[in-house]
Amino acid sequence: MPETFTGPAIVCQAPLPENGWKIQNVSTMAPGPNDLVVEMIAVGICHTDVLFGTVKPPHPLANYPGIKGHEGSGYVRAIGSDVTVAAVGDPVLLSFTWCEDCVSCKSGHRSYCDRFPADNFMGHETFTDENGGKIAGSFFGQSSFAKYSVVKSNSVVNVKSLGLSEEELKLLAPLGCGIQTGSGTVVNTAKPGKDDCVAVLGVGGVGLSAIMGAKILGCRVILGVDIVKSRLELAKELGATHVIDSSDLKGKTLEETVKEICDDVGPHGESSSLAICCISIKMLTQTVVVDTTGRPELIDAALEFLRPKGQFCQVGSTPMEFNLSIPCFKFMNSGKTYRGVIEGDSYPPEYVPKMIQWYKEGRFPVDKMVKFFKAEEYEKGLHEMVSSSDSKRYQLLTGISIQERRSSLSCCGSAQSHC
Amino acid sequence: MPETFTGPAIVCQAPLPENGWKIQNVSTMAPGPNDLVVEMIAVGICHTDVLFGTVKPPHPLANYPGIKGHEGSGYVRAIGSDVTVAAVGDPVLLSFTWCEDCVSCKSGHRSYCDRFPADNFMGHETFTDENGGKIAGSFFGQSSFAKYSVVKSNSVVNVKSLGLSEEELKLLAPLGCGIQTGSGTVVNTAKPGKDDCVAVLGVGGVGLSAIMGAKILGCRVILGVDIVKSRLELAKELGATHVIDSSDLKGKTLEETVKEICDDVGPHGESSSLAICCISIKMLTQTVVVDTTGRPELIDAALEFLRPKGQFCQVGSTPMEFNLSIPCFKFMNSGKTYRGVIEGDSYPPEYVPKMIQWYKEGRFPVDKMVKFFKAEEYEKGLHEMVSSSDSKRYQLLTGISIQERRSSLSCCGSAQSHC
Repeated sequence: MPETFTGPAIVCQAPLPENGWKIQNVSTMAPGPNDLVVEMIAVGICHTDVLFGTVKPPHPLANYPGIKGHEGSGYVRAIGSDVTVAAVGDPVLLSFTWCEDCVSCKSGHRSYCDRFPADNFMGHETFTDENGGKIAGSFFGQSSFAKYSVVKSNSVVNVKSLGLSEEELKLLAPLGCGIQTGSGTVVNTAKPGKDDCVAVLGVGGVGLSAIMGAKILGCRVILGVDIVKSRLELAKELGATHVIDSSDLKGKTLEETVKEICDDVGPHGESSSLAICCISIKMLTQTVVVDTTGRPELIDAALEFLRPKGQFCQVGSTPMEFNLSIPCFKFMNSGKTYRGVIEGDSYPPEYVPKMIQWYKEGRFPVDKMVKFFKAEEYEKGLHEMVSSSDSKRYQLLTGISIQERRSSLSCCGSAQSHC
Repeated sequence: MPETFTGPAIVCQAPLPENGWKIQNVSTMAPGPNDLVVEMIAVGICHTDVLFGTVKPPHPLANYPGIKGHEGSGYVRAIGSDVTVAAVGDPVLLSFTWCEDCVSCKSGHRSYCDRFPADNFMGHETFTDENGGKIAGSFFGQSSFAKYSVVKSNSVVNVKSLGLSEEELKLLAPLGCGIQTGSGTVVNTAKPGKDDCVAVLGVGGVGLSAIMGAKILGCRVILGVDIVKSRLELAKELGATHVIDSSDLKGKTLEETVKEICDDVGPHGESSSLAICCISIKMLTQTVVVDTTGRPELIDAALEFLRPKGQFCQVGSTPMEFNLSIPCFKFMNSGKTYRGVIEGDSYPPEYVPKMIQWYKEGRFPVDKMVKFFKAEEYEKGLHEMVSSSDSKRYQLLTGISIQERRSSLSCCGSAQSHC
């Protein structure tokens, strides 16, 4: 029988707005044959954590008490009898979980697993509190807002062979969700060519990752759209060739502004405060739009400025009840595509090491997006993530880290992702 | 100055319902430097001909007098000074036209040409009547409802090197529109794998061509849906592994029926009058839906039975004013794709010869879809195309042919295509 582990965790005892999240000691239950116990050293915070830690009972997704966190990194401390993915002591990055038995899993598209919502959003009880009360864990197969957590085998990406330092392992915690969601949407799903234009709506953590992905592919025009100037500055640093502040369109529509940039028609470049370089962008072969905002008015505008045969990738969550209205005849005649993308259609054991390789080559500067917080400061991290629109700095990717005597829990979060 | 040619044509003097279509002699105007004069030996009739020959002035697409026809085949009788695609005497199959200068053309996706509607739907005057009155031609760059017509260079696929008999040249006339639209949607755009399921809604000419395309790719399950039993029989003959008569669902919904077949759950195969074979269809990796009907209720149903990560290809024209409502959040989470496809994203000079090769190999039995009519009987051909839902035979692909002393004009038409 494997040992259990006790340590601090951020426990959602009740919805966040009711001050229901608390740091308290919890113990892991015994891991199953295919589970591992991981000691976390970092974990991203993401809007999905907030979403599921905010929903009120009796909503079916309300699951209290429970532990969120789904962008964890750390070291393996125990393994179940059937585990082969890692050994005790191995450094790991964590990602979502899947069933491996359904059509989507068998065909290699695990982020569309039939059991994705059940296994990732709901999980099951893997912790007890100091009184023996049960606490839901296994959020995204990992519940990594805990120093020690029971993690499913297929949420584990073993990075032992990649020679990462502990600091790098912390830094790279969000690869397995927000960053793969953004970059994977471009690299794995849309697959634009070098002559293509990629427009990214919302340059939070997921959007910035999409920009990095487009830069990896060498796309000729990479356009970032946001309302926060500091984020747009970072977007440029990470690879955007052009940025648009959609809160300051100088009397034009977003569609007009994008077309102006992408068709090289009318003034842009140095003459515009928004377009940051003045290359000739005639003859773009396609437009890919990656929407990380889920905002209906932006989606409508982007479906208009999408070129014939362009692809619109829906990555950000729209309001649950929102129905997109597509004018079929016109849409068909322009050969456009509207598609949903989850987790960048990534297979983490392959895609996470690929991102790490790009990082090592200096082509995937994740470090520029991340800010660390101590775990005790998680409320400050959450606040910065949510309120960053008022800030001059890029603050959507934040982090929290608890420094304890023998271990640390740090969180770096990506925002606006859907995962 | 090239010579002009005089011969009979079906001229739309007024909308079809007003008995406005007449056979009369017309003369070609002098071809431009990049035009050819083609003597037609066959031409398909298609709903698009009817659509544009039915629209009433002052609608902007109304263009009377004018000559339709856009699935022609024949022999070159004269060429303009700059023509290189063919020489006098060469056998040719005709397709749509494009500008070659816009982003879509330059990137190889000519069916999304910026000038597609203007150049294909409207054309310009290329004929005169016996009194010298001008008649609009160049419909899809060809206006092939005429014995002699001025054809644009890039509407021409030269098949001289392919060794077709005259009878084959007649038979293959619809390759350049309806048949490439259906098969190209599967082969060029959706590109399903061997383990995938392709469901085709509406098995008229375009739908049957989609089924042939899916069979060419070796897709494991090919599902035809229609309300006409004779068409469903032909669908089986051409490659459908299963067919569904959606007018006779025995109390089930279409979604339930498709899922039953594709998931191998519940009775099917021999126990069902609709499912024609009893293979195990577990573990299909993807569903591709090709909708050739444009019927909103079928589109809605198909978006439901589409598997996670499935692709819905809109090929049939919906009502012009119809807006499709997509529940974004659910759609995104299932990773589905909704896309428009025109002319199967085909480049006719490459794709038409490919289809001919398949035909020669016995893998693309176009002959099973085609019925010939004399050109004088075009009204009978039109009637059979439109009214075939009452027939026990497959009659949507019909044809007309005028036998004259020295030449013939025959038409074989594909139905429900959008082109």
